[in-house]
Amino acid sequence: MKDNFSIMTVLQEFLVNVNRDLDATLDDLIPKADAAPSRLHEAIRWSVFAGGKRIRPAVLMAVGEAFGAMGRQLLRTAAAVEMIHTYSLIHDDLPSMDNDDLRRGKAACHKKFGEATAILAGDVLQTLAFKAAANDESLSAETRLNLISLLADASGTPNGMVAGQQLDLDAEGKKPSIDEIERIHRQKTGALISAAAVAGAIIGHASGPEMAAVEKYAEKLGLLFQITDDLLDVTQATATLGKTAGKDAAAEKATYPRLYGVEQTRTMADTIRDEACEALSAIKHDTTLLASIADLIVSRTS
Amino acid sequence: MKDNFSIMTVLQEFLVNVNRDLDATLDDLIPKADAAPSRLHEAIRWSVFAGGKRIRPAVLMAVGEAFGAMGRQLLRTAAAVEMIHTYSLIHDDLPSMDNDDLRRGKAACHKKFGEATAILAGDVLQTLAFKAAANDESLSAETRLNLISLLADASGTPNGMVAGQQLDLDAEGKKPSIDEIERIHRQKTGALISAAAVAGAIIGHASGPEMAAVEKYAEKLGLLFQITDDLLDVTQATATLGKTAGKDAAAEKATYPRLYGVEQTRTMADTIRDEACEALSAIKHDTTLLASIADLIVSRTS
Repeated sequence: MKDNFSIMTVLQEFLVNVNRDLDATLDDLIPKADAAPSRLHEAIRWSVFAGGKRIRPAVLMAVGEAFGAMGRQLLRTAAAVEMIHTYSLIHDDLPSMDNDDLRRGKAACHKKFGEATAILAGDVLQTLAFKAAANDESLSAETRLNLISLLADASGTPNGMVAGQQLDLDAEGKKPSIDEIERIHRQKTGALISAAAVAGAIIGHASGPEMAAVEKYAEKLGLLFQITDDLLDVTQATATLGKTAGKDAAAEKATYPRLYGVEQTRTMADTIRDEACEALSAIKHDTTLLASIADLIVSRTS
Repeated sequence: MKDNFSIMTVLQEFLVNVNRDLDATLDDLIPKADAAPSRLHEAIRWSVFAGGKRIRPAVLMAVGEAFGAMGRQLLRTAAAVEMIHTYSLIHDDLPSMDNDDLRRGKAACHKKFGEATAILAGDVLQTLAFKAAANDESLSAETRLNLISLLADASGTPNGMVAGQQLDLDAEGKKPSIDEIERIHRQKTGALISAAAVAGAIIGHASGPEMAAVEKYAEKLGLLFQITDDLLDVTQATATLGKTAGKDAAAEKATYPRLYGVEQTRTMADTIRDEACEALSAIKHDTTLLASIADLIVSRTS
């Protein structure tokens, strides 16, 4: 077994490669900034190439490669997931939603391009995501349809991301129950991270039991990501986060630290990381990289 | 040949049937209003079942049936098109876009449910549309992917609906050229109407030359629809329209009446109707219904 330092080196190298290949794929899939209507394409590119962490594409690629899929079979789906994620961020930052001026250390899309263009940029990023999945010639027609259906469920309603955002809105100013807060987390953030992992497993033709293990791992990873996101909102400064810190408390959002306090939330994060790694034991492939992604999320500082 | 009165009776009966079957299909595809998050699903249903004219589904069904497709093979795609259309209306009415309080004689989605929920309702209607197309088991996998790709191009960018909305925003307060105004019309309204017709022809397995004829017919129909829409904004009262009249002039929108005056625009509409009907002559099926849809659009009062 590799020591922890070299595993993290392998992970860093993997992430650098994912970022490079993903950016090239996104650049192919999104109209050029000088193509009309250029303001729309500039706005899309502003947000898509804003220095996002690309966690979802990394999870998708790592799972897919663990099951023996080739990078070129995974990249368009990874790009589709990232486009859906980015559309949700653009709309989430709007004045009538989270009203956040900062995203990834830069002006939010609506601050830079105006609300109307930001709404359209988010709308059309979703469209481009489904188009990318539909036109992915490296995959069979059946696989593409499975992936489109998966992404629609994960990003949609009643069990997906947008439904989670609505539940989050509904919970503002209230004291949500543990069940309610977990459902919000699971849908708002977890669903798309899970879908990224499952997409990798679908493309890699995982067996039934292995798919169940991936789903379990992905569910834990999604929860872990939201919990650490909530923690960072409480513990980090705006400059480190690249988005406005302390917003959740100000908006009386349903968060883990609000319900359990910071220390207990940290302990919960460690436990969930362990559960994510345990789920991987049912997979008969090298899952070192997948475990290290869970480690990376639990220790992230932005 | 049937006389004009009986053709219009056949058309009315066809439209009644389309509306009934489409509503049942949409009701199946959209989560129930009491399913959580109920506010989101109420908002979606508020806009989807607001009494829209269902022109796009009617065009899709009429073209598909002209080529011998069964209604059950057409309905999900028709519902997908209508969901995309409705999402665009919800977002178009937002304060930062057209800022319209009225839609189809009722409060616009954001007036009834608030801006945040309206944004999410529009977002997830797009998602539900692509999901419906992906899961349509009455069609082959390849056909479903063709339809998804078609709808994504027609509703997206650089040549689709959202790009057209951006061009329209960009043109506000300017004096657009004839070419610019035509591109805005073609994309903002024409592209999705065209796609509806082409989708019917794809599902009906139209031949190459017949597909070209459908595309020509659909292009003219889309242009006709936008021109008559512009005319109605100038000539009709708010109560008749079910949306705020006179908005285009107030916003200095790029419209045909603004460029050519009302009378010349009416003459142009008649010419375009004739061109749409001429295109149909290349189709070796009964296209009476398709011609009567063009007649209906040119004579519409709301």
